[in-house]
Amino acid sequence: MGVLSTTEFPLVDHHCHGVVTAEQDRAGVEALISEGGAPPAGETNFDTPIGLAIRRHCAPLLDLPPHASPEDYLARRAELGTAEVNRRFLAATGTARFLVDTGHNPSGLTTPEQITALTGSPADHIVRLESVAEALAADGVEPDEFGEAFASRLAATVAETGAAGVKSVAAYRTGFRLDPAPPTDAEVTTAAARWLGTGGTRLADPVLQRLTLEAALGLGLPIQFHVGFGDSDIRMTDVDPTLLTDWIRRHRVPVMLLHCWPWHRQASYLACVYPNVQVDVGSVLHYVGPRRSVEVLAEVAEVTPFTRLLYSSDAYGAPELYVLGAHAFRVALAALLRDRVESGEWAAADAERIGHLVAHGNAERVYAR
Amino acid sequence: MGVLSTTEFPLVDHHCHGVVTAEQDRAGVEALISEGGAPPAGETNFDTPIGLAIRRHCAPLLDLPPHASPEDYLARRAELGTAEVNRRFLAATGTARFLVDTGHNPSGLTTPEQITALTGSPADHIVRLESVAEALAADGVEPDEFGEAFASRLAATVAETGAAGVKSVAAYRTGFRLDPAPPTDAEVTTAAARWLGTGGTRLADPVLQRLTLEAALGLGLPIQFHVGFGDSDIRMTDVDPTLLTDWIRRHRVPVMLLHCWPWHRQASYLACVYPNVQVDVGSVLHYVGPRRSVEVLAEVAEVTPFTRLLYSSDAYGAPELYVLGAHAFRVALAALLRDRVESGEWAAADAERIGHLVAHGNAERVYAR
Amino acid sequence: MGVLSTTEFPLVDHHCHGVVTAEQDRAGVEALISEGGAPPAGETNFDTPIGLAIRRHCAPLLDLPPHASPEDYLARRAELGTAEVNRRFLAATGTARFLVDTGHNPSGLTTPEQITALTGSPADHIVRLESVAEALAADGVEPDEFGEAFASRLAATVAETGAAGVKSVAAYRTGFRLDPAPPTDAEVTTAAARWLGTGGTRLADPVLQRLTLEAALGLGLPIQFHVGFGDSDIRMTDVDPTLLTDWIRRHRVPVMLLHCWPWHRQASYLACVYPNVQVDVGSVLHYVGPRRSVEVLAEVAEVTPFTRLLYSSDAYGAPELYVLGAHAFRVALAALLRDRVESGEWAAADAERIGHLVAHGNAERVYAR
Repeated sequence: MGVLSTTEFPLVDHHCHGVVTAEQDRAGVEALISEGGAPPAGETNFDTPIGLAIRRHCAPLLDLPPHASPEDYLARRAELGTAEVNRRFLAATGTARFLVDTGHNPSGLTTPEQITALTGSPADHIVRLESVAEALAADGVEPDEFGEAFASRLAATVAETGAAGVKSVAAYRTGFRLDPAPPTDAEVTTAAARWLGTGGTRLADPVLQRLTLEAALGLGLPIQFHVGFGDSDIRMTDVDPTLLTDWIRRHRVPVMLLHCWPWHRQASYLACVYPNVQVDVGSVLHYVGPRRSVEVLAEVAEVTPFTRLLYSSDAYGAPELYVLGAHAFRVALAALLRDRVESGEWAAADAERIGHLVAHGNAERVYAR
Repeated sequence: MGVLSTTEFPLVDHHCHGVVTAEQDRAGVEALISEGGAPPAGETNFDTPIGLAIRRHCAPLLDLPPHASPEDYLARRAELGTAEVNRRFLAATGTARFLVDTGHNPSGLTTPEQITALTGSPADHIVRLESVAEALAADGVEPDEFGEAFASRLAATVAETGAAGVKSVAAYRTGFRLDPAPPTDAEVTTAAARWLGTGGTRLADPVLQRLTLEAALGLGLPIQFHVGFGDSDIRMTDVDPTLLTDWIRRHRVPVMLLHCWPWHRQASYLACVYPNVQVDVGSVLHYVGPRRSVEVLAEVAEVTPFTRLLYSSDAYGAPELYVLGAHAFRVALAALLRDRVESGEWAAADAERIGHLVAHGNAERVYAR
Repeated sequence: MGVLSTTEFPLVDHHCHGVVTAEQDRAGVEALISEGGAPPAGETNFDTPIGLAIRRHCAPLLDLPPHASPEDYLARRAELGTAEVNRRFLAATGTARFLVDTGHNPSGLTTPEQITALTGSPADHIVRLESVAEALAADGVEPDEFGEAFASRLAATVAETGAAGVKSVAAYRTGFRLDPAPPTDAEVTTAAARWLGTGGTRLADPVLQRLTLEAALGLGLPIQFHVGFGDSDIRMTDVDPTLLTDWIRRHRVPVMLLHCWPWHRQASYLACVYPNVQVDVGSVLHYVGPRRSVEVLAEVAEVTPFTRLLYSSDAYGAPELYVLGAHAFRVALAALLRDRVESGEWAAADAERIGHLVAHGNAERVYAR
């Protein structure tokens, strides 16, 4: 390849979001490059690992020297305009296929079709379960019809979009301390009545969360779970993925554990002992930056079978996150492969084969139709 | 030594199991080299960190080149036959003494006596508490006699086998959220009646689990606890070893925390603050392979006193696991010692002394009679 | 600086304790250099990572060669006497300002004023909430006056000492599974009656713990929380700092998460998403020693904004802990900065600026009055 470079590996980004299309001022960019939103007075989100990585790796894509100041970077970014920046940055990722979660604040974000237009790479839909439930509630539904109506609506949405998988954000809504059994019809009706009666927005009910998973199982598509790191709206002790153990044991459908940090070793344990579990460390790789991405990937790869480790960027909004997600992953994967070959642990041909599995091959297998 | 090599250190493997004596086909070997059992269609357990380590480190013991293909490896393994492979692999570990947990599916596995015959090294019994209880139930016992009968049977089993210690698999059965106090006689009778009434197999009752620990305390022998990584039959959030804090505080008997990953830093904290707690990172070292074993051992050694860190392989069934457990441990220990000496942090003589403590000296002290 | 050395960086130690002034025999020194207290028969606390670091880094400050034996070290230490050893060791830390928690066994420890006399550096008080409550109880107070009396006493203590902040040891007393809402007056009265009725020593009541935090919020000063690693009197599963999420979300006051290991990645997540959260890895750095401090600091710095990462030693009693806390921190910070510069990830000027923020600048901002 040689095994020492992963630069040319095609990537399948099996979980990302759209990129914003509006022009962004400094406040807008700062808010998009942190899971904590706008910085407080006297601080800047450029004084973070990701902020420094942007100056190093994204500035050259804007024709600036590495380490350009935030001011120079933002000025040049505004000068080129969002459309051109999006085009340059997404092209730089070398992504062969995108799987796009269209459920989180999609207004103002590119659709999968627009991502294809920007990049020339195919882009599939990933349907967010909670968004389907909330759309159904907005359209009006009787509590005692909610269960069946949800299953129908989900199936229709999947069919209509040709979705490659579905996604649960139970992590943000109820956490993973859920009864692994499907809810009864009566439980669903009661829970739906309560939820719909209080407006039917932002689903966060354990019974209805279980219902959405049950309906998803009926589709046979991979089910993605947000796990661990993400925005502030989470209780980290409730999203250790091993809390899903009893649920996972009951099913054979591919379970895709996304992000996972700081529970990535727990996630890798699940991938080790349950053949239907796959993991990635998306999102956190660009937040920690290329130097620490090496250790984070090495940790998740400690016991995860190489057939069950995937790439995702989880990039959202800022095109910088696509660049850095792909770059940090390539750096980390190359470091892992190089270490194994140079130490004599693996043959170079095995390293190359495994690199391709992780970068795209495993995703191609799991999301094949 | 020099301090740069641990190859010649004798090892005391203070927790392992027997090795299988039957001939194995590919499916048999694949099932034995993963905590997840047989791989699904289209995957092989050779595409894991341990699978690649087998090709690298075990193939040469079968007169094959490093990185031999799985097919060549399995063919040669079958050609030599299990008895010869077992003999070669166990000899390669350099183990001076084995402590063998005889409680897990012992049929078809070598006994401690057979391990001695294979290797020429002494092998002690470790008595599994749950197996004693289950044997007692199978023989028939009245619920109101269960407590005393268990204590007697345990003492007799220990005496008969000359056991060096006992082991609890509470991790697999109830987890560690146990009341630290001993159960009352009435509680034991009630729990025994319930368990015996449902067949008396696979003990998994919190009251009876506490009873087995109480009886074990009466022996004064080290008590081993499975902690963390292992097969799929565990709920990881219930086996953080710090959940045992209140129980540990009540007693002075040596408490041996086995495996521990991904809770190994939590285990090291306990070893740091409770003088009767010892830890190892057995089992996971061969699953992560020699390159990552360096970091895992370094992490558990962050605050663990060097007088309370031990070696175990936790090898079970496949002779490959004995080879890799010992090799990964030696590599990791050598890397730690070398790092401390080369950086000027430790004198070479201290490094050598500490290396010997961890490899065998601490186990000799704790398991002395 | 060059960026390759942090030796000259001034440090603000935003959380430490006093140093003992009495002469110490071997047992006294051994007890002070371990969170587990005196070693059991046949072991010595010099056979720990910190014990070896003392021989390496403290012996030369006593005019001994590196790696001096414990016997030589202790003999020379006794010969020089505590006052001289304290003077030499504290001077060696290069600390520009100390923030001293005066609440833990302060008798026999230097006061902040005495630390200033020893070192020439200013030293502020940090008021421990539980100590104020216990002093109030000792003086006598009616249960229905407890809430107001505590707030008054706390405000008076802070004013009198000119304290720079307050500290909660809820971690040791109740853990962090606390209702985030302030308690009602009636709840406080009931809880105070119960606590005072049983002697009013060692506060460990969830309602009163919440009361102390509520009173602290009224001051607007930074609130320090002990998190994670420390002495044996803790239940580690109850002090994951993300258990404080709901409490943190309600407030804007600076929240200072101290020590944090092994939950330091969880703490860094909070610092990433909540602008008022700051973290350090004090205490554990000297326990793990200079080699592992590099990895521990690198882990906590994975997603923590560099404006929210601080230095503390958490040194207590033994002057060795001040030396090693500062040294291990300098080594770890230098390694992080050097890695980023040498890999081309950061400009040298950014590395230097960030190094100064972490070593002292962030503490100066947060604890400015």
